[in-house]
Amino acid sequence: MTQTARFDGRTPDQLREVRITRDWLDHAEGSVLVEFGRTRVLCAASLSEGVPRWMKGQGRGWVTGEYAMLPRATHTRSSRESVKGRVGGRTHEISRLIGRSLRAAVDMDKLGENTLQIDCDVLQADGGTRTAAITGAYVALADAIDTGRRRGWIPAAVDPIVDSIAAVSVGIVNGAPVLDLPYEEDVEADTDMNVVMTGSGAFVEVQGTAEATPFDRSELGRLLDLAQVGCASLTELQRAALAEPRRSGS
Amino acid sequence: MTQTARFDGRTPDQLREVRITRDWLDHAEGSVLVEFGRTRVLCAASLSEGVPRWMKGQGRGWVTGEYAMLPRATHTRSSRESVKGRVGGRTHEISRLIGRSLRAAVDMDKLGENTLQIDCDVLQADGGTRTAAITGAYVALADAIDTGRRRGWIPAAVDPIVDSIAAVSVGIVNGAPVLDLPYEEDVEADTDMNVVMTGSGAFVEVQGTAEATPFDRSELGRLLDLAQVGCASLTELQRAALAEPRRSGS
Amino acid sequence: MTQTARFDGRTPDQLREVRITRDWLDHAEGSVLVEFGRTRVLCAASLSEGVPRWMKGQGRGWVTGEYAMLPRATHTRSSRESVKGRVGGRTHEISRLIGRSLRAAVDMDKLGENTLQIDCDVLQADGGTRTAAITGAYVALADAIDTGRRRGWIPAAVDPIVDSIAAVSVGIVNGAPVLDLPYEEDVEADTDMNVVMTGSGAFVEVQGTAEATPFDRSELGRLLDLAQVGCASLTELQRAALAEPRRSGS
Amino acid sequence: MTQTARFDGRTPDQLREVRITRDWLDHAEGSVLVEFGRTRVLCAASLSEGVPRWMKGQGRGWVTGEYAMLPRATHTRSSRESVKGRVGGRTHEISRLIGRSLRAAVDMDKLGENTLQIDCDVLQADGGTRTAAITGAYVALADAIDTGRRRGWIPAAVDPIVDSIAAVSVGIVNGAPVLDLPYEEDVEADTDMNVVMTGSGAFVEVQGTAEATPFDRSELGRLLDLAQVGCASLTELQRAALAEPRRSGS
Amino acid sequence: MTQTARFDGRTPDQLREVRITRDWLDHAEGSVLVEFGRTRVLCAASLSEGVPRWMKGQGRGWVTGEYAMLPRATHTRSSRESVKGRVGGRTHEISRLIGRSLRAAVDMDKLGENTLQIDCDVLQADGGTRTAAITGAYVALADAIDTGRRRGWIPAAVDPIVDSIAAVSVGIVNGAPVLDLPYEEDVEADTDMNVVMTGSGAFVEVQGTAEATPFDRSELGRLLDLAQVGCASLTELQRAALAEPRRSGS
Amino acid sequence: MTQTARFDGRTPDQLREVRITRDWLDHAEGSVLVEFGRTRVLCAASLSEGVPRWMKGQGRGWVTGEYAMLPRATHTRSSRESVKGRVGGRTHEISRLIGRSLRAAVDMDKLGENTLQIDCDVLQADGGTRTAAITGAYVALADAIDTGRRRGWIPAAVDPIVDSIAAVSVGIVNGAPVLDLPYEEDVEADTDMNVVMTGSGAFVEVQGTAEATPFDRSELGRLLDLAQVGCASLTELQRAALAEPRRSGS
Repeated sequence: MTQTARFDGRTPDQLREVRITRDWLDHAEGSVLVEFGRTRVLCAASLSEGVPRWMKGQGRGWVTGEYAMLPRATHTRSSRESVKGRVGGRTHEISRLIGRSLRAAVDMDKLGENTLQIDCDVLQADGGTRTAAITGAYVALADAIDTGRRRGWIPAAVDPIVDSIAAVSVGIVNGAPVLDLPYEEDVEADTDMNVVMTGSGAFVEVQGTAEATPFDRSELGRLLDLAQVGCASLTELQRAALAEPRRSGS
Repeated sequence: MTQTARFDGRTPDQLREVRITRDWLDHAEGSVLVEFGRTRVLCAASLSEGVPRWMKGQGRGWVTGEYAMLPRATHTRSSRESVKGRVGGRTHEISRLIGRSLRAAVDMDKLGENTLQIDCDVLQADGGTRTAAITGAYVALADAIDTGRRRGWIPAAVDPIVDSIAAVSVGIVNGAPVLDLPYEEDVEADTDMNVVMTGSGAFVEVQGTAEATPFDRSELGRLLDLAQVGCASLTELQRAALAEPRRSGS
Repeated sequence: MTQTARFDGRTPDQLREVRITRDWLDHAEGSVLVEFGRTRVLCAASLSEGVPRWMKGQGRGWVTGEYAMLPRATHTRSSRESVKGRVGGRTHEISRLIGRSLRAAVDMDKLGENTLQIDCDVLQADGGTRTAAITGAYVALADAIDTGRRRGWIPAAVDPIVDSIAAVSVGIVNGAPVLDLPYEEDVEADTDMNVVMTGSGAFVEVQGTAEATPFDRSELGRLLDLAQVGCASLTELQRAALAEPRRSGS
Repeated sequence: MTQTARFDGRTPDQLREVRITRDWLDHAEGSVLVEFGRTRVLCAASLSEGVPRWMKGQGRGWVTGEYAMLPRATHTRSSRESVKGRVGGRTHEISRLIGRSLRAAVDMDKLGENTLQIDCDVLQADGGTRTAAITGAYVALADAIDTGRRRGWIPAAVDPIVDSIAAVSVGIVNGAPVLDLPYEEDVEADTDMNVVMTGSGAFVEVQGTAEATPFDRSELGRLLDLAQVGCASLTELQRAALAEPRRSGS
Repeated sequence: MTQTARFDGRTPDQLREVRITRDWLDHAEGSVLVEFGRTRVLCAASLSEGVPRWMKGQGRGWVTGEYAMLPRATHTRSSRESVKGRVGGRTHEISRLIGRSLRAAVDMDKLGENTLQIDCDVLQADGGTRTAAITGAYVALADAIDTGRRRGWIPAAVDPIVDSIAAVSVGIVNGAPVLDLPYEEDVEADTDMNVVMTGSGAFVEVQGTAEATPFDRSELGRLLDLAQVGCASLTELQRAALAEPRRSGS
Repeated sequence: MTQTARFDGRTPDQLREVRITRDWLDHAEGSVLVEFGRTRVLCAASLSEGVPRWMKGQGRGWVTGEYAMLPRATHTRSSRESVKGRVGGRTHEISRLIGRSLRAAVDMDKLGENTLQIDCDVLQADGGTRTAAITGAYVALADAIDTGRRRGWIPAAVDPIVDSIAAVSVGIVNGAPVLDLPYEEDVEADTDMNVVMTGSGAFVEVQGTAEATPFDRSELGRLLDLAQVGCASLTELQRAALAEPRRSGS
């Protein structure tokens, strides 16, 4: 791997500037505006009593996710899925990924019969929206659980969180593995991988796709190395953000 | 009308704090984050070549609007219209109002065969979302036209804007007419009216609804008085915002 | 305002010929075929036990409306919304207006946990379909309540009707305010206003739209004057129609 | 077959009172309000230039049908298919039957590249709505073709009609074959058959369904006998209606 | 009727080769792969406890059907109805026919509050898919009831089957009535008829359609003669198939 | 890893019995019935002229996939997506995976402006349906291209296939990595991974999901080892199948 400069001057294993703004909304139990460079995702975690019908009476909770993009999040406007009357395949796929990933953060027995609904709405897209969404959503989820414990919806003595969750994209661009791809690199990538990890360093989801050229085992290894570095940094940023006191009134 | 204090301390003819942040998005030709107190709407104006099929070949442009609310804009989460597979009546109605209102700002012949698509997405709702959306959307539209003229999509010598557009809600709460109702007043209102006006003080749209008690001609007059005061102030705020230089890079 | 003749010979403040045929249907609790000139709307009021889920147990009733147009009501055939699989924005908007307007006629506590469903189907359209629909629907609603009281669904001693409701369109055509616009005038109008009033002369809904040129306060005043004249006449016609005995068998 | 009296006093082979009102609509090229007793169907025939894409360039025309029922056509209100967002199976089935049946009336080569769209909207239902619709639609279609020839859309010298079309329902009720079943008999029928015939006495469509008990060849024969009698009478009524001059202005 | 040879060498009253493979699926209570020549339909009968809401508490069962075609069952691929988001009219019509036909096989009181859901999926289409579906579905249904009785869902002493059901298509091709039309004959047919009969020789459904030329009573008679011959043969094949022991494990 | 026996007696790295039946359909350009144990998927490859609109004029081809499951493929019946009116998230996700995977097999420039539509319909599901679908679809695709070259749609001298594609599922069940999981193992798996590889041994897609417990790098490695073994065997089976002459008539 030659250390060729990236178009935005970052080193291959460097994240974009990541910002996590907690309690960006007034009504949600937890909410985060997360930014990875110009990618900007509003994550709202809604905690409500009850679970879907098929889960009732088991004493266990549920975590589910929905992802969407505002029409002008992208360079050219795309039409609204509500107006088209159907959710597209990409939206479906990412919503499912967000739900699965965040479920790994929570002990459903400790959550009790409550539902955490995670809404990730992309306000501006510049690559890596799904991994930014997961990373921000974890912080919103942690705050929503905090709200629930303070309000007595979840016993204050019980902490349903088992681990933190962060996610990052990695890819092979011009033959070189790089971390956290913005749009310009994303369209050039030979291989694109999204990795979701726990704060303690285990994998929750690994999704690698050969966009142009199939990849081999050693390339896969180098991409996982990068992802581990990136997720560790994001975990640190999440911890720092959550160490701050919440906005008064939350 | 007794001059009873409003729950947030405002006088009857006082607007909430209004903030207009231009170029909140990097890709849109024009964009504004508009805030009326806790109501927060992201307005994106997309300028693109061409017009809908039924308008082709007439040399005239088109302005259209879409309104939507994020699921957790409200106190309790509401479900996504994309997931339900249909746009609700309220959404439809407000989208049509936004389109009609903004069309009054533009000379379609001067716009040429270009389309201005206005997207108003409510990030947080606290009453008056449709009027905040229109007020913000005008500024986004003005910036999008500015972008179009600077890029040569519209001849620089031609200014398609005929007037500015602002909108405000008024209503009768506990028997007294008040300006710019937040959610708490909105649910209490006997009569609710949304008024859209031009910068030069003419009416574009007047929509008054008796929520509880039918209203008489004199009440209608007092509501229109208030709306005229409110729209005049909003027009000033729009002018001040547009007098600032645009963010570099826009 | 010069008193220019209208293309159909009416004076500016003259209604078209209005006909109200009660009990046009055999099954509905109340039904009216209402005609404003060539505009022809079939209004059916269905009274049924129970209310929507979100209203249960409050002892109050509900009134709701749906509006639709037959495909060949218009000069050229339009496609069916059932076949398109979605209700259009205009349909949604008018359905909501009909529901809101008719709710002003009824004391929901006195109605008890019953629902009045108002269906307004435009058989032929020649301008003013929504206001004709509301005017006819009130008579159908009154008959449905009469049926309900005669059948004992509502106690005979209780009259849930608080006032009658009529509606009319007004507009500025060629600079002059006119009452009750047919299609030919509607497409020419600078300003178009729909006004819904109670029988006792208060406003329930005022919806004014500048189609071409924004309007000022004095034009608004003259339009409201005309609308008050028109609604008063329609109220008389409703009273006269309801004073007739019902068709035997109803 | 015992000649048991029918509940409405008709003999087994007697039609209900049939009324055919031509040009019930002002805009449609042909329109008929057809009544079979209390069953009331508005049939509009729209003639327009052009054919569906898959037929273009063959010099042939097309005839298609759509059937729908107003929500309060029936004893209890049914919900709108436009609001449900999908057309039900029964509606689909009858729409297809109407299209097929009417196509048998027309020489597509002589029609030229024009489309006849037949809309049959049931205003009130009391059994036999599909057969009443077909019977009325033929008259509307004949008038629409007359309009087309008078307006020069179809050469006046060319008559695309090859035969008339009428339809009637027959069934076995309490063991006895009867003609033209109203709702009360329809729900009691063991076998239900809809028969579409040409004016010259040939079959276009025969649809027999054993609702309760399978039927044998001789019962089938007696039902066809009755249907032939009924269709012959309806053909006479159609001829008489079409022999009248059209309403002035059509 | 001249005994002209058919393109595949069959006599006019000869079926294609019919094959009935029972228990083609491992999970379904009853399943059949039925082949009429190259037409190949997979019929699954699912027996489950409970009935639709509108039937609850009556102690009676329900039989319902759904028909669909795989996209590449036909010569050229057709698009999926799931992707289009709506079921087409033809699909609706045939699903309803299958349900009605199979209900004639079952005594609903003896079935108890159980539902038999019949799924007929056309894997390959070569004419006569709906009649093949019904013929195969009866065998699947019989096996599903057998499963239910062996598992105790239906008392072993009770046999809800009242008769067998078979179906076949007949038509007039080049002026001659023929039995069991493959695609090549189907597109050429002047008249097309689908006939559903009980094993004891009564009619359940007769659907005849004049595709090109209306037909007369004597042609109808000859088509019914052929259909009776065909259904009798199919009834024999069903009996023979059901006389075999079921696949072990079913 | 203790070499505990699997419930069906296989060793951890042993595939189920795999059967590939080519030309199972008569009309499709290529078709395969693929079986992995009781999982049975019908793969049809349709080759047609032309490409989607957004690709026109580039001289390149397109490969796309759709996946669906028959309602009774599973232990209990699931409802049809066509009837529900929307495609579910899982279906969307797998359809996209199939399309992406098969595109890796084809040189789009050599394919020319032709489209290969891959339909994978699960007739019976017993785990691993998506990987069985991809494995079978490759063989169908190869046959469709063969058909295209024999018919001259693609120049006979040009072979658009760049490599073969096979896919398999692997997972950690009771702590031990195993290959090719049937339903019983799938529901027990801690980690579930689907791997798509080229015949020459490179990765096209790696999708690993921690169902219960997050996994570490070494577990990931052992799963990839197993997947490489499985895909190599499947590649052999594909080669052997394609080495047979095609069914006459194809």
